[in-house]
Amino acid sequence: MEKKKVLVLGGGFGGVFAANELARIARRRFEVELINNNNYFVFQPLLPEVAASTIHSSDAVVPLRQLLRRIQIRQADVMGIDFARKCVTVVQGFRRLPVELPYDELVIALGTGVDLNRFPGLAEHALTMKNLSDAHLLRTHVISCLEMADVATDAELKQQLLTFVVVGAGFSGVETVAEVNELIHRALRYYPHIKHDEIRVHLIEYAPRILPTFPADLAEYATKRLRLHGVDVRIGVGTKSATSTAVELTDGSVIPTRTIVATIGNGPYPLVESLGLDLKWGRIKTDRLMRVPGHENVWAIGDVALIPLRDEPGEDPLGYAPQTAQFAVREGRQLANNLLAKSKDRELKPFAYTSKGSLASLGMSKAVAEVYGVKLSGTLAWLLWRGFYLSFLPGFASKVRVLVNWLLNLVVPPNIVLVQSAVPGTRYIHYRKGDVVLEPGMLIDGFYTVTRGALKLTIDNPETSEHFEKVFGPGEHFGERVLLRSALRTGLVVALEDSVVLWISQRDFTRLARAFPFLETYFLSYIEKTFGGPDKAFAPGSAEQAAELEHLH
Amino acid sequence: MEKKKVLVLGGGFGGVFAANELARIARRRFEVELINNNNYFVFQPLLPEVAASTIHSSDAVVPLRQLLRRIQIRQADVMGIDFARKCVTVVQGFRRLPVELPYDELVIALGTGVDLNRFPGLAEHALTMKNLSDAHLLRTHVISCLEMADVATDAELKQQLLTFVVVGAGFSGVETVAEVNELIHRALRYYPHIKHDEIRVHLIEYAPRILPTFPADLAEYATKRLRLHGVDVRIGVGTKSATSTAVELTDGSVIPTRTIVATIGNGPYPLVESLGLDLKWGRIKTDRLMRVPGHENVWAIGDVALIPLRDEPGEDPLGYAPQTAQFAVREGRQLANNLLAKSKDRELKPFAYTSKGSLASLGMSKAVAEVYGVKLSGTLAWLLWRGFYLSFLPGFASKVRVLVNWLLNLVVPPNIVLVQSAVPGTRYIHYRKGDVVLEPGMLIDGFYTVTRGALKLTIDNPETSEHFEKVFGPGEHFGERVLLRSALRTGLVVALEDSVVLWISQRDFTRLARAFPFLETYFLSYIEKTFGGPDKAFAPGSAEQAAELEHLH
Repeated sequence: MEKKKVLVLGGGFGGVFAANELARIARRRFEVELINNNNYFVFQPLLPEVAASTIHSSDAVVPLRQLLRRIQIRQADVMGIDFARKCVTVVQGFRRLPVELPYDELVIALGTGVDLNRFPGLAEHALTMKNLSDAHLLRTHVISCLEMADVATDAELKQQLLTFVVVGAGFSGVETVAEVNELIHRALRYYPHIKHDEIRVHLIEYAPRILPTFPADLAEYATKRLRLHGVDVRIGVGTKSATSTAVELTDGSVIPTRTIVATIGNGPYPLVESLGLDLKWGRIKTDRLMRVPGHENVWAIGDVALIPLRDEPGEDPLGYAPQTAQFAVREGRQLANNLLAKSKDRELKPFAYTSKGSLASLGMSKAVAEVYGVKLSGTLAWLLWRGFYLSFLPGFASKVRVLVNWLLNLVVPPNIVLVQSAVPGTRYIHYRKGDVVLEPGMLIDGFYTVTRGALKLTIDNPETSEHFEKVFGPGEHFGERVLLRSALRTGLVVALEDSVVLWISQRDFTRLARAFPFLETYFLSYIEKTFGGPDKAFAPGSAEQAAELEHLH
Repeated sequence: MEKKKVLVLGGGFGGVFAANELARIARRRFEVELINNNNYFVFQPLLPEVAASTIHSSDAVVPLRQLLRRIQIRQADVMGIDFARKCVTVVQGFRRLPVELPYDELVIALGTGVDLNRFPGLAEHALTMKNLSDAHLLRTHVISCLEMADVATDAELKQQLLTFVVVGAGFSGVETVAEVNELIHRALRYYPHIKHDEIRVHLIEYAPRILPTFPADLAEYATKRLRLHGVDVRIGVGTKSATSTAVELTDGSVIPTRTIVATIGNGPYPLVESLGLDLKWGRIKTDRLMRVPGHENVWAIGDVALIPLRDEPGEDPLGYAPQTAQFAVREGRQLANNLLAKSKDRELKPFAYTSKGSLASLGMSKAVAEVYGVKLSGTLAWLLWRGFYLSFLPGFASKVRVLVNWLLNLVVPPNIVLVQSAVPGTRYIHYRKGDVVLEPGMLIDGFYTVTRGALKLTIDNPETSEHFEKVFGPGEHFGERVLLRSALRTGLVVALEDSVVLWISQRDFTRLARAFPFLETYFLSYIEKTFGGPDKAFAPGSAEQAAELEHLH
């Protein structure tokens, strides 16, 4: 018998458990290949502990090749699916040559992304908590805020740096705010110029209470606990917009902050939207067998799928499988059994499962839990939380390392090592009317192009009594003089209305302007026209750049 | 008595041990502040183990605030030193406002950087092993090569991916090649399509033998060991140039590879060069008291300093303190004592110290060691290596975690989690004459501007018999059509001579072209002129970009 090829797209709980079960029950019938954009499986429940520096980032994940020994793993990006020809196009590696992979059965388990576009500025200025790099970035960001606050001389800046806002109080938001709050207060012993009462941690939830999937009394306990630990829990209020220095709420209040964590806004990945499948609430509709209607051999499971738990649930969200790891695991296993049944021409079973309970950590050795209808809170629930996830975490080495770190954390202070990540080449920055974009004396570090709104530059030179003013609208730009002189001090730039600028780093823009004569010509003439004065040609920005240029030209 | 302010620049072995000793012996006389660009101290000897995935990256470092509890720590970049006004200018944090810090005594312990500019292409295409992010990046890169090789369909590409070249066979080069070689072979069990005999690991050394600071017989033993483990040790040959797909050696041979690690080329940081101090071999000359000549209150220690071990050593390298951790530690301590003596108007002592020995790990539980003149090799030396560094590693938590990981590594396979780092906005890419830059069918991912050399584009469309050719020289560019259509397949681009291009990512260039009407106009007219045809205006490159643009405009 020739083996049928099963392609599994996505290496989260759904995809991993489907592939594993297929390898276990039907190795002789199926050849299984799992495609994921990372080479590891993320154990989502431990991400807040990564953000809190309690465990190492690589201990919250397990390499897919170690987890699924009998299955072919391919680290690649999915570009598209041709349902008619039954093949998936992926792109992988340095060469970016597209590769077509044929399938007999296709399992879509791609999960969901984050879509924050309903809230202006939030996509650009909020951190998220979806994957490993998010958790790692949040940890890095929190520690860098403490580093900067410890040496900040400006009181307003210091308060922004010490204010942390988590948006959304579901499972992820509550655990994140609890763990990050604990990290900050435990780390303060190393920051002599920051006092505990200078820290502001906010949890913002639009719904009337936190932890909607938990019983009301446990949510009430969790709220009290968080408040006791200094977290300002605000319910019934949502986010309106965000900038790099503040978040605006639906009640009109503005919280100045450098740290916004958004745990809201699940949305489909662009690829999923582009497949031409029937989506509802951003998820792929399936029948009760988890099959995509109209496609005999295409299935969807996990967060990306909308799987009815009864016939015709219509608009009732409770009529569909919830987006939890617990359900994804059962969907994966059941799907494997359905694929086996199909290949044997046996009857397929509709998906059915009832949640066994939930657990949420509240930090400071406390948690809430509901297991088989029994409600627990406090330290006992926290020990249950740790025990359950430790037993569930795949991989012996990960278990040992997580346990060692948990034990070490009882006696040693948190790890505040700050490994900085690379600066992106470009980013969009939102400003509210009145925001100061650049101020005199600041070392400018990039080139700014206005994409929306209006900003005003003012330069006052007290020595020469020189005064210069200019308003920049969409398509206009400032900062180009950084190309002429290294580390040039700037004038005052203020947003005249709500505005968006595109920022490109000094290094990248200098390289581009030098390589591309047309740009250099434009800027030289632009600068002479705008600012007058006989500025010299593109001087290298630093000794390093000078070496670079000498070397290249 | 008013305390004198001591500024220590640099948080390596020299700076940390100087600051710590000052806090220990002279707290009432000195207020000490240490400035470093990272908030942690790097325990250099363990970096190769980070690259080899044996220990977690954050266990090879210790937060400076934890290490130096009694000293003010400032994470900042040093911009300049005003010796006349006795102050240091630093820049820190989001706002990049320069801050001036006055000092009474200044200790320069900035270490050395890497200067590979003597070898065309090496700076752009080689990984280095200087700091924590280097080690982390090397680990990531090696694992991604295995991931890609496992699914590579092209034999030539696969061979490049499985060839690893380490340049320089000093302490760092030998340990790196040994550890990385061990990682690769241990990880292969998870890569079913890669055989052990497909792996090529080269160690390139220009000197007539490896490990120049070790006795010749130990170096001989190390060479044999490495060869036994499959490492091709080539002595008496250096690097000439590098591209993204090959390294050229001084004997004319070319090794096709995607991985070059350079452990050569120590050079001063641009800041150190800009200070106006007297440099020799790229290091700051000091007197025997470690004082910078002509500056009563400026001192230099560690790798950045050239400290004579006897009077007038002239051109004899052995007459100066070597650039090792062992010496830096003693220099730091001695300097602290000299500063105390100076403040008490006592006599200062010239620096003197004799090395107690060296240790180098060779992987696979073997090492070489020379301690107090006793030579050791093999497993005993390896146990000594581990024991010594574990005892020397600062911090209880780090010791426990490193020990646990060492023990775990005896029983569990290596961690192959691949956490990808951000793609930089721009980079320079070197090509050798004849290199294929882009090939038909490849998904182009950026915009290319030629900065040196010449490249030829050929497009052949068999369906329309269309043939198009164009040669690009400095200032000319290709790939701009990626701005017009997402994921456009390209023609063939070949380097006609040795060339350098500047690459900017599709995302960054599309953002820039859209924000900046002048660029859009230029490219639309350029493309029509060059390629003819009625290409549409800047179409968003993907659903993601479309969402981004809709949101912003």
